[in-house]
Amino acid sequence: MVNGVLALEWQERIREQLKKDRKEAEELLQTWVREASVQGEEASIQKLIANKLVEMGLEVDEWVMEGDELLQHPYFVSPRTQFEGSPNVVGVWRGTGGGRSLILNGHVDVVPEGDRTQWSLDPFSGEIIDGKIYGRGATDMKGGNLSSLLAIQTLQRLGIRLQGDVIFQSVVEEESGGAGTLSTILRGYKADAALVPEPTNMKIFPKQQGSMWFRLYIKGRSAHGGTRYEGVSAIEKCVKVIAMIQQLEKERNDRLEDPLYAKLPIPIPINLGVIGGGKWPSSVADLVTLEGRMGVAPGEEMEDAKKEMKAAIDRLSEEDEWFSKHPIELEWYGARWVPGDVEMEHPLMETLISLYPAVVGAEAIIEASPWGTDGGLLTKLADTPAIVVGPGVTQVAHYSDEYIVLDDIFTCAELFALTLLEWCKNNGKN
Amino acid sequence: MVNGVLALEWQERIREQLKKDRKEAEELLQTWVREASVQGEEASIQKLIANKLVEMGLEVDEWVMEGDELLQHPYFVSPRTQFEGSPNVVGVWRGTGGGRSLILNGHVDVVPEGDRTQWSLDPFSGEIIDGKIYGRGATDMKGGNLSSLLAIQTLQRLGIRLQGDVIFQSVVEEESGGAGTLSTILRGYKADAALVPEPTNMKIFPKQQGSMWFRLYIKGRSAHGGTRYEGVSAIEKCVKVIAMIQQLEKERNDRLEDPLYAKLPIPIPINLGVIGGGKWPSSVADLVTLEGRMGVAPGEEMEDAKKEMKAAIDRLSEEDEWFSKHPIELEWYGARWVPGDVEMEHPLMETLISLYPAVVGAEAIIEASPWGTDGGLLTKLADTPAIVVGPGVTQVAHYSDEYIVLDDIFTCAELFALTLLEWCKNNGKN
Repeated sequence: MVNGVLALEWQERIREQLKKDRKEAEELLQTWVREASVQGEEASIQKLIANKLVEMGLEVDEWVMEGDELLQHPYFVSPRTQFEGSPNVVGVWRGTGGGRSLILNGHVDVVPEGDRTQWSLDPFSGEIIDGKIYGRGATDMKGGNLSSLLAIQTLQRLGIRLQGDVIFQSVVEEESGGAGTLSTILRGYKADAALVPEPTNMKIFPKQQGSMWFRLYIKGRSAHGGTRYEGVSAIEKCVKVIAMIQQLEKERNDRLEDPLYAKLPIPIPINLGVIGGGKWPSSVADLVTLEGRMGVAPGEEMEDAKKEMKAAIDRLSEEDEWFSKHPIELEWYGARWVPGDVEMEHPLMETLISLYPAVVGAEAIIEASPWGTDGGLLTKLADTPAIVVGPGVTQVAHYSDEYIVLDDIFTCAELFALTLLEWCKNNGKN
Repeated sequence: MVNGVLALEWQERIREQLKKDRKEAEELLQTWVREASVQGEEASIQKLIANKLVEMGLEVDEWVMEGDELLQHPYFVSPRTQFEGSPNVVGVWRGTGGGRSLILNGHVDVVPEGDRTQWSLDPFSGEIIDGKIYGRGATDMKGGNLSSLLAIQTLQRLGIRLQGDVIFQSVVEEESGGAGTLSTILRGYKADAALVPEPTNMKIFPKQQGSMWFRLYIKGRSAHGGTRYEGVSAIEKCVKVIAMIQQLEKERNDRLEDPLYAKLPIPIPINLGVIGGGKWPSSVADLVTLEGRMGVAPGEEMEDAKKEMKAAIDRLSEEDEWFSKHPIELEWYGARWVPGDVEMEHPLMETLISLYPAVVGAEAIIEASPWGTDGGLLTKLADTPAIVVGPGVTQVAHYSDEYIVLDDIFTCAELFALTLLEWCKNNGKN
């Protein structure tokens, strides 16, 4: 870890610079959080970010995604096929040559604010109270994006030039399955490794769980409720399907031996999130649909997970004649996140782990994520091993009163700046 | 059964008259079926019926329901409080005095036609094919209403005057819980007994099952699907509630010893008809609602049935701490039908049973209905014991391609005409 030690010579100066720039950085984050960049409404924040990157002297690439290469790609998932109003932005801080390149990937799309009455403040207030900034997207993941941007800016302000390229990616569509990052890959962006500062509470996730959405149609036969025995209740049949899903989840998790998942009660859950069926209280329901999310283990092929679900459904049909005559229909729809898997011995892991204690004051906690990120696409499709580590906590992501602790953003920025120094190599100053 | 025997002297003449009038009667029924008298759209058919009753020389009373006496009545149930476009019609064929009175009650409101693509003909075609007339409401219960009307008309055309009053009721709102019949009662209509020609396939139902709609709110705690163990799934909790309902249904039916229900697999079902909950496939569902219909046994107090449901929910809370901390909410809403219960030895039962073989050519089948009718209100509130017997079959009620076999309407008309002769007494002709 010689290089790590060398990088640490810069730690005090980086920390000082971050302190000096803190007010300016917090105000920048406030402008970002005040942009309600829900799906389809990202143009305005992307303009702010592109302008900032230009100001920092990066080579800026801004484009609206389109074309069959993207739309027909097997990993393309999105509820839409038109992306006007949602440009992608990439800024490259070109290195002097000879160093390793690094992608800093983050998304600017945020999930909708939901029921406004459940928010104590305006959902896009960007207000700072007691060291926290509040608003939809603060933790997921505009705070993390700021850490990435500050890492570059801090090195620049300290007069450092790196040998390797740093590619700052501000993408759309992460919340609906990753079309934004997919588009950067198809546009040719790749690197020797990547960092994705999704909210991990500063834990390091070399592995990320993938997930896929599914829908099950469970059939019944209608009848008047007063003679319900003349029908077959899809609601009652649904109980068997729920038990089948629970059993499948158990089997899949029982055989998972990855130590990174050892602490999680259910490492790769199958969540049944939505149920609906029947039309009339006094009629027997003839159709119930179940919608859910199937976790996919790092290193597992998504197609294999799909086959396993299908096999479980087929087993149920063998046990229950009704299902064999009225098969449960299975549909894979909506969002999908590719699992990610970077080996523990990867050099970027070593760099992060070696720098971590000096920055955070504790050993790094290494885990596997319980959710998907765009890192899976980078690792799997762009040959760019992606590690997820960032400020922010998932407990407030997607909920009302979302916030992020500002200190954590600057801690992460410090870790990233040192990582850049170490990974992409300082050119000449040490 | 001396009177019964006397009435039967008229059987041949009644049958002859019905045969003579058959084409006219079928055309009348076609005009009724062609009226799409769904809730709120009954004015037009009621005008046709009122005109017909005036033409027959009955004292006709037509009114739009209103007022607190109705709206605040404990038995009032309706999704609406304004009834414009939905008048009630009653016609009284006044007797000469001294005989028993009889109400002939039927409803003109029909349930919506549903998905039109599932109908082979227009849902309100009124077409006659192979001795059946097709259309929404044919079996439930415009065909039965025609039997009642023909019973009066046939006696009139044979020059008969009865001693007792015959009260022909053409009501609205049966399909949503009986506000139309409730209004006739509050207006003062009552009689020594009543016939309700709902579709029983000519079985005689002295007892009718009541029913009530309920809604259960089952709570969970939301979490991200990837860490679903941090939440509590309302969908999983719902499985316990479904089991509780099944257990309650079993207990209620096991103790039911009424021989009229001996042939039914589940005499008083609790039907769970609608389920819905959760908002997002990858979130843990924090609320599921179940809507259902609870059967109420003839002779059972509705309040007692409600208490029993509440007790079952409370038991579940004792077994499951989650429910004790996050109680299941129970709501009685929507429609409700009062159960009806007329003793087997009631004189109108004896009259019907004695006349039945000569008319139908077989012994009467006596059962209890698996569904509610307005008869319950007449029996319970108007001191007017109501017996349900009519043409039409429930298998097609509320479904696409609803129809009724025309022959059965005339068989029922003959039975009703003889019953009127016997019950209200012929004045002087025999």
